[in-house]
Amino acid sequence: MSLSEFDIIKRYFTKPHHKNPSVITGIGDDAAILKVPDGFQLVISADTLVSGTHFTESADPYDIGYKALAVNISDMAAMGARPLYVTMSITLEKNDADWLDALSSGFFCMAEKYSLDLIGGDVTRGPVSICVQIMGLVPDGQALMRSGAKAGDDIYVTGTLGMSAFALYAKNQGYDVIDEACLNRLNRPEPRLDIGLALRNFSTACIDISDGLQADLSHILSASKVGAIIDIFKIPMYEELSEMTTEQAINLAINVGDDYELCFTSPECHKDDLRLMAENTPVKLTKIGKVISNQDLIWQDKDGEFIEIARNGYKHF
Amino acid sequence: MSLSEFDIIKRYFTKPHHKNPSVITGIGDDAAILKVPDGFQLVISADTLVSGTHFTESADPYDIGYKALAVNISDMAAMGARPLYVTMSITLEKNDADWLDALSSGFFCMAEKYSLDLIGGDVTRGPVSICVQIMGLVPDGQALMRSGAKAGDDIYVTGTLGMSAFALYAKNQGYDVIDEACLNRLNRPEPRLDIGLALRNFSTACIDISDGLQADLSHILSASKVGAIIDIFKIPMYEELSEMTTEQAINLAINVGDDYELCFTSPECHKDDLRLMAENTPVKLTKIGKVISNQDLIWQDKDGEFIEIARNGYKHF
Repeated sequence: MSLSEFDIIKRYFTKPHHKNPSVITGIGDDAAILKVPDGFQLVISADTLVSGTHFTESADPYDIGYKALAVNISDMAAMGARPLYVTMSITLEKNDADWLDALSSGFFCMAEKYSLDLIGGDVTRGPVSICVQIMGLVPDGQALMRSGAKAGDDIYVTGTLGMSAFALYAKNQGYDVIDEACLNRLNRPEPRLDIGLALRNFSTACIDISDGLQADLSHILSASKVGAIIDIFKIPMYEELSEMTTEQAINLAINVGDDYELCFTSPECHKDDLRLMAENTPVKLTKIGKVISNQDLIWQDKDGEFIEIARNGYKHF
Repeated sequence: MSLSEFDIIKRYFTKPHHKNPSVITGIGDDAAILKVPDGFQLVISADTLVSGTHFTESADPYDIGYKALAVNISDMAAMGARPLYVTMSITLEKNDADWLDALSSGFFCMAEKYSLDLIGGDVTRGPVSICVQIMGLVPDGQALMRSGAKAGDDIYVTGTLGMSAFALYAKNQGYDVIDEACLNRLNRPEPRLDIGLALRNFSTACIDISDGLQADLSHILSASKVGAIIDIFKIPMYEELSEMTTEQAINLAINVGDDYELCFTSPECHKDDLRLMAENTPVKLTKIGKVISNQDLIWQDKDGEFIEIARNGYKHF
């Protein structure tokens, strides 16, 4: 039997209870209603995944649902905001029960893990895309902006860069075997939420790495009107990249993106706080450079030689 | 020269100032930040327009931008909420400066008229679609829900039904001339925001008519666990429908939708308040029936005879 838009929403996307008492009304009216608690600001971000651009037609719908939410949670992490509410607008070619079931399972796997309520959205017919808007809370004035970096601050990244890029490269090259952790990073990235929340106390500027370190760090630098010197040999690259030429490795590590690690700046006085924080999380923090007042992004090698790196971060157009 | 995603956002979608001081940060960081004022709840709705489903490939991009926002404002009207903030995620086949310019003009025409701030979103490559999420405020507990209708309440609709449906019908039939007001209703619907806001004092349940009176009134009835008797001859139909067979006219007036009028219920004691309200707005209010406790939707003609009407409101699947 064919399901209507309303049946699809009811069957696949409506949960009986809200996790967050601040959700006054969720799915089922013309709009959802939230009560933002006193002393908090609402933080809002939207990201769309489109078939043919962000995933292939044959992609596992579980992964699509998972990743659509993961990349949005990553934006909340980069703001130091706790994500609580999400809306999802789905466009579908056809009503395929198995596909919807898997999409919804992947989506709710993430939603459960991070205690998020799906509060609205819509279901439309057309070329497949998933448009997710996420909303979270941050104590008044404590959001991590891109604009607060100061000359002298240390620059850090979380985790490892270039893993997703390598998975994509290996798939395109037709590798027989690709490390599962590596594929998982591409298909089911884990947002660095705990670190983003903890950084509210120590960080002057923060961004999540979706378009590549070079492009995303540049956003911090231009918003903060500063520059940076990055020690390229300190960048925590995915180990398989060491098998490639240096140029290829650097390109995959800093120009492709889809890492969903955080890049942030922090005054030197907080370096012990950060070390302590890193000891309490399985994700490593690596200091890769320094903020400078001159508005350039400079890459240097072990010998202090400056290296030119082409700017070809992921671009949609 | 080809514009990047960031250039497109900067050139077409970023305004120098926010209209609403509650916008702490708009476009340009990982997320936007809002401060919801004390005593208010946040109301959130999302609606997507997809090429080939909601508009044709040759549709005027100005109209697409206009309508994408109009249908979302209509949801706020139906909640009695004042819309203030909006995010838009655009998916585009290619970077066409004229198309983007027109889309942005249509969108901001509505945004200016209703003092809305575009606070975020994204731009992605793929089959054309516009995913808009709107957010507004309502004083605590005053939102117009679908669930408050009580047996004995009067049922009203604003304006005229079937105008958009007729425009679509006339286009499909290849009519040489179609009334401009009628085409405008299809392409640039005017949300009934002033009425929605005023109804907070007088209405027990409210919905905007996007899928057709029959489908949308049914949402109120099922959410409120009541039924209705509707005097079909009292429905304010678009005048051109009188040229058609009764069956055709009724179908276009109640089963096609895209009206963006409001359907609401109100206790009889407020009928003078509503009359007074109607005198102060150019949009008429028409009482079309009564809420009953029996959970049926009954249509009756002038002679009190019950009429069977097929349920074929607009369905996506």
